[in-house]
Amino acid sequence: MSSSEYRVVPIGVIETEYESSESTPIQPIYSQSVGRAIINPEYSAGLKSLELFSHGYLIYWFDRAKKPELLVTPYLDDRQHGVFATRVPSRPNPIGISIVEFIEVGRHIIVFRGADMLNGTPLLDIKPYISKFDDRKSVVDGWIKEMSSDDERYIADDRFEE
Amino acid sequence: MSSSEYRVVPIGVIETEYESSESTPIQPIYSQSVGRAIINPEYSAGLKSLELFSHGYLIYWFDRAKKPELLVTPYLDDRQHGVFATRVPSRPNPIGISIVEFIEVGRHIIVFRGADMLNGTPLLDIKPYISKFDDRKSVVDGWIKEMSSDDERYIADDRFEE
Repeated sequence: MSSSEYRVVPIGVIETEYESSESTPIQPIYSQSVGRAIINPEYSAGLKSLELFSHGYLIYWFDRAKKPELLVTPYLDDRQHGVFATRVPSRPNPIGISIVEFIEVGRHIIVFRGADMLNGTPLLDIKPYISKFDDRKSVVDGWIKEMSSDDERYIADDRFEE
Repeated sequence: MSSSEYRVVPIGVIETEYESSESTPIQPIYSQSVGRAIINPEYSAGLKSLELFSHGYLIYWFDRAKKPELLVTPYLDDRQHGVFATRVPSRPNPIGISIVEFIEVGRHIIVFRGADMLNGTPLLDIKPYISKFDDRKSVVDGWIKEMSSDDERYIADDRFEE
């Protein structure tokens, strides 16, 4: 068992139209909203070649998530599940991951489609989405049910917000 | 621009057969190796329902990665790319993500296939892989080339190790 702790430092910030969880899409695939990742100048050289990819992971800090609980009722179900069997933002380490579609990768700004995070979210890392690494076949989606495409549960509320 | 910093604390540790980068698969899809994620007892309640999923993301700390550089030559190419356009472990925030296949989810131990991390790696988070959220179509894989399945570059070396 490890007892160390580690520090993360934002490499930039994510700008979106969402100021609170209420009305924010719960996942990028339910969002057509365009956001911008602004990379701090000292890290911008690290974007070289990212424009060759169509999609990427934005890895960020859920800075407005409330204190985590180990059992939670997620947006998409009425039953309790363990926090690690859900994507809720209130987690022991509140690290968020969104797979977004790049519209433009500039010198230090990434414009992307699929914004599902709050405006001002601290950005920690970016990785390219690589289909030959990341596509999985024969996946079983656990407790996630089929829902109609207009299900209101695709939009968040304030239950996990501080 | 955010100038805060945040702290992450391991929720457990990942046990694998790999003691150094040399000979370690570079991605889970190139690995049939079985690993175990051992969750600290105070977090184990958070695993409830994870056994319903076939795959999940392990999110961890590259604790033996060397100091990051913004331009790197990754395993799969001979040209330099920005660190954020690669999956190399030496990153400004050395957060690793592996999509693994669950073999067994126990009370506080996850046995999985697809180990590509070093033995003793600090585990930060677990999220279920949900195909309806995470599968992407029409993906362009950037500088990643088609390679033969026995290409020796699917195995890491020590270039990013401390």
